[in-house]
Amino acid sequence: MTKAQQLKHLLNNDEVTYALEAHHAASALIVEKTGFKMIWASGLTLSAALGHRDCNELSWTNLCDQFEYMADATNIPILVDGDTGFGNFNNVRMLVRKLGKCGVAGVCLEDKIFPKTNSFLPYNQSLSSIEEFVGKIQAAKDSQTTPDFCVVARTEAFISGQGLEEALKRAYAYQEAGADAILVHSKKSTIEEIESFCKCWNGSAPLVIVPTKYASTPSDTYQKLGISVVLWANHLFRASLIAMRDIAGRIFREQSVHGIDSQIASLNDIFELVDENELKRAEQKYFPLNLNV
Amino acid sequence: MTKAQQLKHLLNNDEVTYALEAHHAASALIVEKTGFKMIWASGLTLSAALGHRDCNELSWTNLCDQFEYMADATNIPILVDGDTGFGNFNNVRMLVRKLGKCGVAGVCLEDKIFPKTNSFLPYNQSLSSIEEFVGKIQAAKDSQTTPDFCVVARTEAFISGQGLEEALKRAYAYQEAGADAILVHSKKSTIEEIESFCKCWNGSAPLVIVPTKYASTPSDTYQKLGISVVLWANHLFRASLIAMRDIAGRIFREQSVHGIDSQIASLNDIFELVDENELKRAEQKYFPLNLNV
Amino acid sequence: MTKAQQLKHLLNNDEVTYALEAHHAASALIVEKTGFKMIWASGLTLSAALGHRDCNELSWTNLCDQFEYMADATNIPILVDGDTGFGNFNNVRMLVRKLGKCGVAGVCLEDKIFPKTNSFLPYNQSLSSIEEFVGKIQAAKDSQTTPDFCVVARTEAFISGQGLEEALKRAYAYQEAGADAILVHSKKSTIEEIESFCKCWNGSAPLVIVPTKYASTPSDTYQKLGISVVLWANHLFRASLIAMRDIAGRIFREQSVHGIDSQIASLNDIFELVDENELKRAEQKYFPLNLNV
Amino acid sequence: MTKAQQLKHLLNNDEVTYALEAHHAASALIVEKTGFKMIWASGLTLSAALGHRDCNELSWTNLCDQFEYMADATNIPILVDGDTGFGNFNNVRMLVRKLGKCGVAGVCLEDKIFPKTNSFLPYNQSLSSIEEFVGKIQAAKDSQTTPDFCVVARTEAFISGQGLEEALKRAYAYQEAGADAILVHSKKSTIEEIESFCKCWNGSAPLVIVPTKYASTPSDTYQKLGISVVLWANHLFRASLIAMRDIAGRIFREQSVHGIDSQIASLNDIFELVDENELKRAEQKYFPLNLNV
Repeated sequence: MTKAQQLKHLLNNDEVTYALEAHHAASALIVEKTGFKMIWASGLTLSAALGHRDCNELSWTNLCDQFEYMADATNIPILVDGDTGFGNFNNVRMLVRKLGKCGVAGVCLEDKIFPKTNSFLPYNQSLSSIEEFVGKIQAAKDSQTTPDFCVVARTEAFISGQGLEEALKRAYAYQEAGADAILVHSKKSTIEEIESFCKCWNGSAPLVIVPTKYASTPSDTYQKLGISVVLWANHLFRASLIAMRDIAGRIFREQSVHGIDSQIASLNDIFELVDENELKRAEQKYFPLNLNV
Repeated sequence: MTKAQQLKHLLNNDEVTYALEAHHAASALIVEKTGFKMIWASGLTLSAALGHRDCNELSWTNLCDQFEYMADATNIPILVDGDTGFGNFNNVRMLVRKLGKCGVAGVCLEDKIFPKTNSFLPYNQSLSSIEEFVGKIQAAKDSQTTPDFCVVARTEAFISGQGLEEALKRAYAYQEAGADAILVHSKKSTIEEIESFCKCWNGSAPLVIVPTKYASTPSDTYQKLGISVVLWANHLFRASLIAMRDIAGRIFREQSVHGIDSQIASLNDIFELVDENELKRAEQKYFPLNLNV
Repeated sequence: MTKAQQLKHLLNNDEVTYALEAHHAASALIVEKTGFKMIWASGLTLSAALGHRDCNELSWTNLCDQFEYMADATNIPILVDGDTGFGNFNNVRMLVRKLGKCGVAGVCLEDKIFPKTNSFLPYNQSLSSIEEFVGKIQAAKDSQTTPDFCVVARTEAFISGQGLEEALKRAYAYQEAGADAILVHSKKSTIEEIESFCKCWNGSAPLVIVPTKYASTPSDTYQKLGISVVLWANHLFRASLIAMRDIAGRIFREQSVHGIDSQIASLNDIFELVDENELKRAEQKYFPLNLNV
Repeated sequence: MTKAQQLKHLLNNDEVTYALEAHHAASALIVEKTGFKMIWASGLTLSAALGHRDCNELSWTNLCDQFEYMADATNIPILVDGDTGFGNFNNVRMLVRKLGKCGVAGVCLEDKIFPKTNSFLPYNQSLSSIEEFVGKIQAAKDSQTTPDFCVVARTEAFISGQGLEEALKRAYAYQEAGADAILVHSKKSTIEEIESFCKCWNGSAPLVIVPTKYASTPSDTYQKLGISVVLWANHLFRASLIAMRDIAGRIFREQSVHGIDSQIASLNDIFELVDENELKRAEQKYFPLNLNV
């Protein structure tokens, strides 16, 4: 199965699939090696890793460069955060064509206005018109270069303060436009908005959710609500931040790295992460003389 | 002081400066916020973060893209790992010109052969001729676009199995060629090679070391030996790896992110890291209407 | 004088400066070698050279990559076509900071909506609000990293079918916001719109025009109207297109390149264009042994 | 047929295929529209277009960015000039994987030393060992991501002053290593070296030549010698240079673009080149409201 086929399968089978965030190839490799079947390439964490805010400060091709490193390094599908598509329907077309070349399996597009604002910030959350966003979904689907590339339509209706009715209306329109799945987002600290949506939804498109704020929801709830994919959307980056902050503080205070070995991976862990042995085998195959030096 | 001036000052003052590794803008920000005065942009960890090995699999411009993100995000000088200069003297010129534009304060060049092999791997460690490397140092110095940009010449004489005499001979030649500092590298588990070098060295160029393998050395030793800069060369990446691996394992097993808050930074920590407040102030200044939506 | 100082001087002295379009480093070099004092990096021709339409199909960083090649190769100032700034005021800030690093001397920003449409196409020409565009100009000026970087505000009032009053109102507002010059654009086949504007204008900001459609205007008219800079905005690309088309046709028909020498530059012309001799001198300086092989 | 299949077919059919140089997407489009079946992406002209010399001043990923624009814009196969592979066998693997994503149909690798020197310059022409280059060919073939991607092995034996025997010995070794074709290069002003090679060659790999210096050879000679592909390796760039120089000189002298219309393409030619009509149709399909403005 291609990566796109894998993603399509995960969206459409009966089980809940959990996807974990990655923000660079190393974190993507960790997601894969841990056993997850799917990677979420988060706009928030990828931007922050590069020192930028989640409001399209980075160009879409800057982001694609990073997606490509992540896809090159891993064997499971990556769903990338495509924000609003970085402009109009034509920018969406450029993006989808490029993402296919980068080796990602699908893109999530959201119905806000370019440049976007992170959903957890309390301003600039106005929505695109349904007509414009439907055109983007259609353009994305028509531009994909592999048959199973997945376009996930994300509605920010709840985020922007609209109610259930608007969220459903948009979700049906996006499904009709060809979306392979619907992501419905909420910043409530409980799952109530999502629950109300799921109970009303009788579309055929699978549902994707992002329980960042309502993280305390018991995980059997997702299965009961018929959720297809749950995105743990930013947790590896958050874990790395605290670990780096702690170790940096300790090294600064102690002016030494002695005694911290239990808190850090070994050099060999790095060499294994990037499969140094494969290179040595290749060198033996393609240029053995080089190793003699 | 410009960043290059800061770096030159740190190399030449009487105190030992400790520099900590960063592999992306977020880790560079942590180095700065912790209180360090200098950032080391490691080729090993930057490559691994992008899923690649430390043997010039990434192009030099790929690396510069990442250096630029790191420099844009921070206010303290970054010394970047320039490997062998990615080719001959002319490639060194291209590199140094580009690094100036990226906003980094200096580059470290090493006297091995392109494509390089990581110093801690037990093969492919042969050295460049002194003549060729001297030409690279001169070319680097002649190409810098700001007067205080620092070129650190790194000798791998010990790494390649040569002795003290060769290391000293090379260090003097590189100083003569214009190097702003000498980095002498060792993979011994004690500081003995470095110690022997320092005791013999009576050049004027400041000395830089990388105590990755001889990490147990008491830190007052560095001052005694007259070391100028100590690079903790890969420790933030190693801390992040283990933290991400642990949290990924826990989330995978528990199918939940509930209860892990003490192990991860908050969303607000991310927003603070990238100074979300500055954007809000800017929006009030440049387009207040936008915030009303 | 820095390139930015040169540009500021050209904008503000009493003579008409003619700037010629370039779309890659080679054409930029030709502009300089011919004797022009200023290069116009056109969005239309640069996009077309890369196979794309003038509607922001290319990302802003893709464009910056090309601007940087052009600036690296030349010694006269480049004014780049920054379209609408590729988003809102914050995208403008990103752009201006990057352009400074690329070595360009100034940017022209226009008061249309992202993604833009080429001014000579008969649709999608609606304007940004004055308030929003004023914020962009202020953000651009506040973000420049050298004191003489020039921000040229381009009003598309005539292009969008608005009249003289709107054009003047906008121009005064943009000057007030800090614009270093005003570009007033027209697609009329005579200079009448521009003439009416110039006769009414009594701002202090210098004026820039683009006589693509009203090319038959006698050149002494520009001086009389008090124009500061005239952009020949796309002519090198258009000359290259027809020449390449002709020679391609001939080679295709004749299945030979024999006898076409008078229509093509020599290999030596290419070597001179990129100053091959400088490299040979550098090689003699930095690595003479290499030349012996 | 995929582009790689087209290229394989052109290499292996009985006719001589003529390929014309392109250095950006616009020139590639002209090659295609003229009727040629194949595009040569020249390292010399692509570097010169970006203001650089043909000695690997540009990084391999810089080049790939440009190859990708060219491939995105066209429907016929592009054979790209891969120089020496930008390092060792492992760099070749990186290159070939990336080229597949860029959409190019094949790569030509030459048996010189990185960084390379242009073949028409009278120095730095020493050859790689056969063993090392054979390893590169094998690595390239093993790394291709589509079955028909073509690896053309170029021997510079004649260029480096070696004779026929060395050229043949290398060509057979490269064919044995898996090369899809052999390019044999000569800087003689007559075809004699190539002729001697062709008459002795009884390998199965098709032959490719570059008659830049021996351009006066009658074209029926190529068929008689059993040549498969003839590369007109730099002629569009050379035609564009002279045309741009001429028109720039005229505009500079006349301070006007009046009366030059017969020497330049029209704006509509540009809009047609990039298929502006397709965008208008797409807009009607995906967002008709936009056109009303």
